[in-house]
Amino acid sequence: MNTSSHEDVNSTQSDTAGKVISCKAAVLRGPGQPLVMEEIQVDPPQKMEVRIKILYTSICHTDLSAWNGENEAQRAFPRILGHEAAGIVESVGEGVVDMRKGDHVVPIFNGECGHCAYCKSDKTNLCEKFRVNPFKSVMVNDGGTRFSTKDGEPIFHFLNCSTFSEYTVLDSACVVNIDPNAPLNKMSLLSCCVSSGLGAAWNIANVQAGSSVAIFGLGAVGLAAAEGARARGASKIIGVDINSEKFIKGRAVGITDFLNPKDLQNPVHEKIRELTGGGVDYSFECAGNADVLREAFLGTHDGWGLTVLLGIHPSPRMLPLHPMELFDGRKIVGTIFGDCKGKTQLPHFAKQCMRGVVNLDEFITHELPFEKINEAFQLLIDGKSLRCLLHL
Amino acid sequence: MNTSSHEDVNSTQSDTAGKVISCKAAVLRGPGQPLVMEEIQVDPPQKMEVRIKILYTSICHTDLSAWNGENEAQRAFPRILGHEAAGIVESVGEGVVDMRKGDHVVPIFNGECGHCAYCKSDKTNLCEKFRVNPFKSVMVNDGGTRFSTKDGEPIFHFLNCSTFSEYTVLDSACVVNIDPNAPLNKMSLLSCCVSSGLGAAWNIANVQAGSSVAIFGLGAVGLAAAEGARARGASKIIGVDINSEKFIKGRAVGITDFLNPKDLQNPVHEKIRELTGGGVDYSFECAGNADVLREAFLGTHDGWGLTVLLGIHPSPRMLPLHPMELFDGRKIVGTIFGDCKGKTQLPHFAKQCMRGVVNLDEFITHELPFEKINEAFQLLIDGKSLRCLLHL
Repeated sequence: MNTSSHEDVNSTQSDTAGKVISCKAAVLRGPGQPLVMEEIQVDPPQKMEVRIKILYTSICHTDLSAWNGENEAQRAFPRILGHEAAGIVESVGEGVVDMRKGDHVVPIFNGECGHCAYCKSDKTNLCEKFRVNPFKSVMVNDGGTRFSTKDGEPIFHFLNCSTFSEYTVLDSACVVNIDPNAPLNKMSLLSCCVSSGLGAAWNIANVQAGSSVAIFGLGAVGLAAAEGARARGASKIIGVDINSEKFIKGRAVGITDFLNPKDLQNPVHEKIRELTGGGVDYSFECAGNADVLREAFLGTHDGWGLTVLLGIHPSPRMLPLHPMELFDGRKIVGTIFGDCKGKTQLPHFAKQCMRGVVNLDEFITHELPFEKINEAFQLLIDGKSLRCLLHL
Repeated sequence: MNTSSHEDVNSTQSDTAGKVISCKAAVLRGPGQPLVMEEIQVDPPQKMEVRIKILYTSICHTDLSAWNGENEAQRAFPRILGHEAAGIVESVGEGVVDMRKGDHVVPIFNGECGHCAYCKSDKTNLCEKFRVNPFKSVMVNDGGTRFSTKDGEPIFHFLNCSTFSEYTVLDSACVVNIDPNAPLNKMSLLSCCVSSGLGAAWNIANVQAGSSVAIFGLGAVGLAAAEGARARGASKIIGVDINSEKFIKGRAVGITDFLNPKDLQNPVHEKIRELTGGGVDYSFECAGNADVLREAFLGTHDGWGLTVLLGIHPSPRMLPLHPMELFDGRKIVGTIFGDCKGKTQLPHFAKQCMRGVVNLDEFITHELPFEKINEAFQLLIDGKSLRCLLHL
């Protein structure tokens, strides 16, 4: 733990500390519009805030839906999206003692202040102030933004992070200090998709050696759940997706059986029960579809089957389960960020990756310079990339 | 543990062992008809079965719905209902080594064979063969009945128990041996309602000192959940019922606050959040109503609130929750028999009652001779009794 005083910390900060930085950012000016590379101004971090130089960032489906402006109430323009990234601390604001200039860090959209009733509870990772909040577009400290255009127009924040910028300012509760020897490019995956999947498998399901698992939806989060199950020694990992091309990646992260519902005569849960003698121990719904959710639930074993809900469900459809179906001993539970308390747990995840317990090689399918961010969006929209890593 | 051989056990059995017993039973001949006191024949117990002399029995809402014949698929007549009871072993069948003549026992509708994959799992109390099954009306051994009329007509079993008879035969997996010093009359409550409520509070919620709790529906199960929470030192126990008369009993089992939704302008979950600074830690739905279930869920605290579903939901309405609502950290879980593994756990519950950790004084509101069983049914239907204990 860093016990140095505020003065000591400042003395190790960079030349730019305390000053406005001009840099490039990919700015969204309206729903569905191409991102525009602009010269912006980034204010210094305020109390308990951190300014980071972003080195790598990638695009997640949550960025896509904010870009689309699917939910009108969540719109705020101009805005800087992005929440999966890795970078280096440029300077820290007053009161920040767990980070200093030069530290390797990853931002987290679901923060951990460490002090509130939620952070002190071992039952939740939803920090009172810094939990994920898609409606938030300003900083907690003063309700203002740290970004502005050259003309002084405020640019809004996104999901506690805003990583599509060479420099960004975050609350320190949303920045995790990781081992400087960890490969920073891959560590960006810990910001969201990989931690969500690993956390679902480890924190929630607590998959054990010999367990059986089904993953519904083989995007980056689903594959990370599979990788978490593989690392724990699950004996059977069934991957379910309507896009058979995803099965190639799936095999690399330890998926043992593939099911494409389009190829089956009967509901997929029947096939899963047949393959596993009654159903899997754990299923992970990463598709965000109510019908898939029901299959995931029914595909688990009665008595002890657990369905972990990770997918975002934009449809107004309610849970497609009858109350009495909960009496068969099947359980369902939702999770944000794999129930990870980010600042506490991600440094451990980083070490697991460094030691090879977890293999992140399969997740970055494309790499592009930051300037080609619109191309990277298109790759994700077309389902061609798992993650396209942008280099800043 | 009784390690004596089969011969030894038999030598201690009664004069009636191995013989058909004639006795009185309350027989249901058709849906909604008054029960008829009949002279019936009770066969000796077969392999791994036990014949019990019932001393006390009471009526639960599950008996009421079977009596009504609400679910056509569950009808089987003539039939002997009843599953809450206490009695004494008359004789045991081949292979039964954990009970002998004279033992004090309570039947359980949700059995525990102790050997199947479910019984060996610490995640479920749903025994493969002897779990609760409202469609079952015969014995597992031979698919036959142990009851018949004087004319030899078979009389069907109910819910693994059929306790509305002076003698009944059960699978030994559905009979729990309890301390002979425990008051047998009250022990009959452990057969169903009290174990379900205590189990929900202890096994599932694991209520801790200082926790806050809300109980929706103040019948016997709900009050037992309250008593379980009180015994664990919950600091706030909110009782919710549309019948304000139930609040009198509620106070006696430790309910600290009463809410009658009919007296409130706003939804009851808003009042609960107001009373508890954001919601209770645990809520127990014992009403069997989808709208109540939603209130129970929303009345829990975000981040860690757990809703335990105990009520039977006859309506076809699906769970009134949106998938995204599971992302606020509120959980919901269903339970049969309070997740109790009956043969393992009920002897411990009996001791807790004997020691005064749990107080069962409030649950038996009426006592009648067995012959007045139709009167006891009416008391329950009219909401006048919590439990009416019938003496055989």
